[in-house]
Amino acid sequence: ITSKLPSVGTTIFTTMSALATELGAINLSQGFPDYECSPELIELVNQAMKDGHNQYAPMGGVMKLREQIARKTERLYGAKYDPVSEITVTAGGTQAIFTAICTVVNPNDEVIIFEPAFDCYAPAIKLMGGVVKSMELRPPDYRIDWGMVKKLVSNRTKLIIINSPHNPTATILHQEDIDQLTALVRGRDIYILSDEVYEHLIYDGATHHSMARYPELAQRSFVVASFGKLFHATGWKVGYCLAPAYLTAEFRKIHQYIVFSVNSAVQTGMANYLEDENVYLSLPSFFQQKRDHFVKGLSQTKFELLPSYGSYFQLAKYGHLSNESDVDFSLRMTREAGVACIPTSVFYTQGTDHRIIRFCFAKKQETLDNAVNRLIDFK
Amino acid sequence: ITSKLPSVGTTIFTTMSALATELGAINLSQGFPDYECSPELIELVNQAMKDGHNQYAPMGGVMKLREQIARKTERLYGAKYDPVSEITVTAGGTQAIFTAICTVVNPNDEVIIFEPAFDCYAPAIKLMGGVVKSMELRPPDYRIDWGMVKKLVSNRTKLIIINSPHNPTATILHQEDIDQLTALVRGRDIYILSDEVYEHLIYDGATHHSMARYPELAQRSFVVASFGKLFHATGWKVGYCLAPAYLTAEFRKIHQYIVFSVNSAVQTGMANYLEDENVYLSLPSFFQQKRDHFVKGLSQTKFELLPSYGSYFQLAKYGHLSNESDVDFSLRMTREAGVACIPTSVFYTQGTDHRIIRFCFAKKQETLDNAVNRLIDFK
Ligand SMILES: CSCCC(=O)C(=O)O
Ligand SMILES: CSCCC(=O)C(=O)O
Repeated sequence: ITSKLPSVGTTIFTTMSALATELGAINLSQGFPDYECSPELIELVNQAMKDGHNQYAPMGGVMKLREQIARKTERLYGAKYDPVSEITVTAGGTQAIFTAICTVVNPNDEVIIFEPAFDCYAPAIKLMGGVVKSMELRPPDYRIDWGMVKKLVSNRTKLIIINSPHNPTATILHQEDIDQLTALVRGRDIYILSDEVYEHLIYDGATHHSMARYPELAQRSFVVASFGKLFHATGWKVGYCLAPAYLTAEFRKIHQYIVFSVNSAVQTGMANYLEDENVYLSLPSFFQQKRDHFVKGLSQTKFELLPSYGSYFQLAKYGHLSNESDVDFSLRMTREAGVACIPTSVFYTQGTDHRIIRFCFAKKQETLDNAVNRLIDFK
Repeated sequence: ITSKLPSVGTTIFTTMSALATELGAINLSQGFPDYECSPELIELVNQAMKDGHNQYAPMGGVMKLREQIARKTERLYGAKYDPVSEITVTAGGTQAIFTAICTVVNPNDEVIIFEPAFDCYAPAIKLMGGVVKSMELRPPDYRIDWGMVKKLVSNRTKLIIINSPHNPTATILHQEDIDQLTALVRGRDIYILSDEVYEHLIYDGATHHSMARYPELAQRSFVVASFGKLFHATGWKVGYCLAPAYLTAEFRKIHQYIVFSVNSAVQTGMANYLEDENVYLSLPSFFQQKRDHFVKGLSQTKFELLPSYGSYFQLAKYGHLSNESDVDFSLRMTREAGVACIPTSVFYTQGTDHRIIRFCFAKKQETLDNAVNRLIDFK
């Protein structure tokens, strides 16, 4: 068989988590919590199963969940999305991203992505016969140089993929980025895929610049969000996609042949849980506390920390400590210090290595403290 | 936006189920049970959530579930699949089918399908730039004419999609089909996608000719199965794909970017439930009873019934009663008799209409009786 993705192996997330388990290391690599999701939410899902929500959900999602999504989106971003025609529940953020790419990218279409980038964008583009045009963002601030982006745009540019809060860099888009993006796409047939799976993980009172806020951008955007991040249940694999009706119609044509629909009991339980707005309103401070605690702890180590404005990731520079590649450094740290992380070079298609590693701080305070203790003298 | 699937609308399953709900008709259209899945299974899923199985499952599936799948496959088909490298848990049978097609079909590759066919095959092939070569099967027996298939094969044929027990016709493959298929693919680079989501729904002691049974076929096959059908929980969206290691490796490269992984708590609950082999061993007689009861009831109506050898579907001819198209007849029956069904013409890309409708009998005895009563004088 001719491989469609010859250069793809097992993702770094699988590799590092497996190594951490094997060695009994503290796993700050793959992004997921080590504490439990709400027992109340679990009971609501259980109740939904007992109430018989066990057959096919509607293709677009359980209506009550779509209504809650609409309510949350209006509450947070002042944007009205129609549950019937503009909101689709997906099997996680990843499936929403894949489906959006599948919806708009045709052979030879160009897609602009910013690297470091989450690992699923480029393969999905390639599977559709599209061409990845990637622009490199550089530490320490990883800001987008919009003048450079403009040079990347051609009449074959079909899609721009943005991601804020950003994985792995923990940076966020600013108003200036929104203005530049708006100017860039104005008058052009370019769609936007906005990966906002960390929308609720944003700190220091900063504004999450969701595409949903800006009608001129929203009318050409697929906005992707994740309940795994919102509910501390990454393993349930439920997310959603907001898009204007004309895009949602095409998105769903494909969605229905990829998965048809998503777990009906889980959707129903989530919809009931979301009746309490505090569930999402409390999230920024919940994670900010973790970030602050972890940063304070890491200040005792030899790493140089980069700022974490959003997401549940914290970048750390080790270039002054060692000349190893970030993959080698990460592997050695896992073995010698017993703390697993993710090397950021894997987020660049060319393997660009800035000697920076990524920690996930969606962990119990105790886990973060133990990791810090193990790292204090590590170099 | 240029639609990639311009001719695709909402699936007939969504349309008919919605109409049935709107009119309060008995819904024998979309294939799903109207009785509950096992409370014991629900409790096992609940327990898995409470036990903390709420973060990302391994990409290939929860290992215990993969082991149970291997055990079941060996028990039923005498075939050994390695849980580590040959079994992948998917977000339902649909996602497995989409992913297998995405794995092997390149632009201009030809894929042979048999019509009537489940609606997700052709769009997935087209999305990959492949060419659908469809062969029409004809009532009343819908047997495959392998001489004709041979004429469809070219050096661009990449994949053959088979489906047994068959949706919508309720026919099954026979040993002769296996022999012919084996002769056909021998020495050719043709893969097989075997949609076996109704594997356990097979009647009168017939053998399910899983591709897994035949090493020469299995080594080039993706075998797709569905827990929704096995557990009477179509809404949970868990299925799996068996394939030899060299195909599974490519399948997973794509699977990981479509959904990454599947609900970990549901997988864990299912794995524990499967410890009891009787769960699947009892299924044929459970559904055969329903089929027999329904067939007996329908014999009082004016329909001519076709044999149902497998699946939870029953075909009925009405051509002697009315000249309407099967879509019109189905709509009128839903309105006038209050029983919804699926017109079989929607399973043909050319809309071939044999004046045959499909009923789903995965329903409570009471539901089947009520439907029969409403249909007794209908014409
Ligand atoms: C889908 S596994 C990766 C989890 C994640 O988002 C990350 O660690 O970056
Ligand atoms: C995925 S909805 C269709 C259910 C089904 O398999 C059928 O009714 O044929």
